[in-house]
Amino acid sequence: MILVADNLHIVSPPVEQAIRSRDPGPIRDLVRRCVAAGAGAIDINPGPLKKGPEETMTFLVEAVGSETDLPLLLDTTNPSALAAGLSACRNPAVINGFSLEPHKVETILPLAKTFDADIVGFLLDSRSRVPVDTDDCMAVAGELLDAATRAGVDPARLIIDPVVAPLMWENGARHNRAVISVIGMLADLFGFPVRTIAGLSNLTTGPGPRQKKRVAEAAFLAMLAGAGLSMVLVNIFHDRTVASAGVCHHLLQSDIFSWEEIEAP
Amino acid sequence: MILVADNLHIVSPPVEQAIRSRDPGPIRDLVRRCVAAGAGAIDINPGPLKKGPEETMTFLVEAVGSETDLPLLLDTTNPSALAAGLSACRNPAVINGFSLEPHKVETILPLAKTFDADIVGFLLDSRSRVPVDTDDCMAVAGELLDAATRAGVDPARLIIDPVVAPLMWENGARHNRAVISVIGMLADLFGFPVRTIAGLSNLTTGPGPRQKKRVAEAAFLAMLAGAGLSMVLVNIFHDRTVASAGVCHHLLQSDIFSWEEIEAP
Repeated sequence: MILVADNLHIVSPPVEQAIRSRDPGPIRDLVRRCVAAGAGAIDINPGPLKKGPEETMTFLVEAVGSETDLPLLLDTTNPSALAAGLSACRNPAVINGFSLEPHKVETILPLAKTFDADIVGFLLDSRSRVPVDTDDCMAVAGELLDAATRAGVDPARLIIDPVVAPLMWENGARHNRAVISVIGMLADLFGFPVRTIAGLSNLTTGPGPRQKKRVAEAAFLAMLAGAGLSMVLVNIFHDRTVASAGVCHHLLQSDIFSWEEIEAP
Repeated sequence: MILVADNLHIVSPPVEQAIRSRDPGPIRDLVRRCVAAGAGAIDINPGPLKKGPEETMTFLVEAVGSETDLPLLLDTTNPSALAAGLSACRNPAVINGFSLEPHKVETILPLAKTFDADIVGFLLDSRSRVPVDTDDCMAVAGELLDAATRAGVDPARLIIDPVVAPLMWENGARHNRAVISVIGMLADLFGFPVRTIAGLSNLTTGPGPRQKKRVAEAAFLAMLAGAGLSMVLVNIFHDRTVASAGVCHHLLQSDIFSWEEIEAP
């Protein structure tokens, strides 16, 4: 399972300040620390980009790319910012992402073909609502596959995000059970082992005690790993969460097991 | 997921001493502490019972039953000890268990019919070897179902144990991947949501640092819970493992989520 750092986010004051002053230093420093903490990819989330979308995304892609060769996830709903970022990007690029909302199918999905890039498809219906149960999720997955095929995007470019629900949501636990099941069912629907991604930080959105949130993150991450998730968006500085990912890797993937490889924070 | 305490084991010196002196006090005290720690069932493991098998199992079942009404798992390969224990048992009883070895099919499996008891079936081949991959595990599951049907045991009485492999085994990780997959596949084979059980303590058998073993236990337990495991044998005094089970329950089962229900040791 690849750990994608979700730390490069506009809500972080140093990131917001670096974007505003077009100073790549703090961005590069953050990326360096993410890589050291175990990131296998970096999510770039500059928010909705109301002002100067193309310039901002280009600045970010270049700043991050000057520090690392890791894959970059371009995480915005602004199609022109995505196009500018994809043009500037020398790293492997992932568009993050599209859903069945008609304007996203029309403006974001085709970028995957134009730029020969991977693209995340969110398991959300055409009004961006989370389907609660497994059957509804699988129906949406089928529609994402159809939409990609119609747009001439190779289905192998798709990475499915079953959209982790916050625990505080009314049907959060019920939907998250469906998330776990769906991960194991997608390969049959697609006819090949389609990649999957999930945003773990969503789980503990809202108020709640910090230490308990970390325990919940670590446990849910293990469930996702056990189900076969390919990539997970995490705060890469949550050491208990990252350790859980490490131990899951060694439990399920290692040919030769060694306690020396296990971290126990 | 029901937590089954595996603490009442002959290898524990106080348990061995209590059995030898036929003193129910230490047994009752241990059971009381297991229940307080969150056990939903108690496994009684008196070893191979070379001497006085019937009397020993009867003593244990009565000692434990005088302290709790929880289900008891009778964990021995000695059929006459099992029969004596089942006769004496006033708690819900589970025979733990049988495998495809011919003498176990002949002598242990029929006890489930005679005593109308649940019985654990181990996913081991007829020579008690662990099948490495998913297909082999599923083939053995089919043979267990056939054996139960032939013996006149209601398949709803079966609880399948896919046999967690120690991490140190050569094919341990490969088999444990199969364990996770098989849990989700059994319902289709059986035609109903057959119950499952796993022995978590097996995972970390052998030398290794204690703290890292607990981290591995907590993570693998979450994977098993996410896969839908019904019951898990654990050392109920491993608080990080038990907390992982608690958080998994609240992540996947709770209709109304509350941080107050989460433990974070």
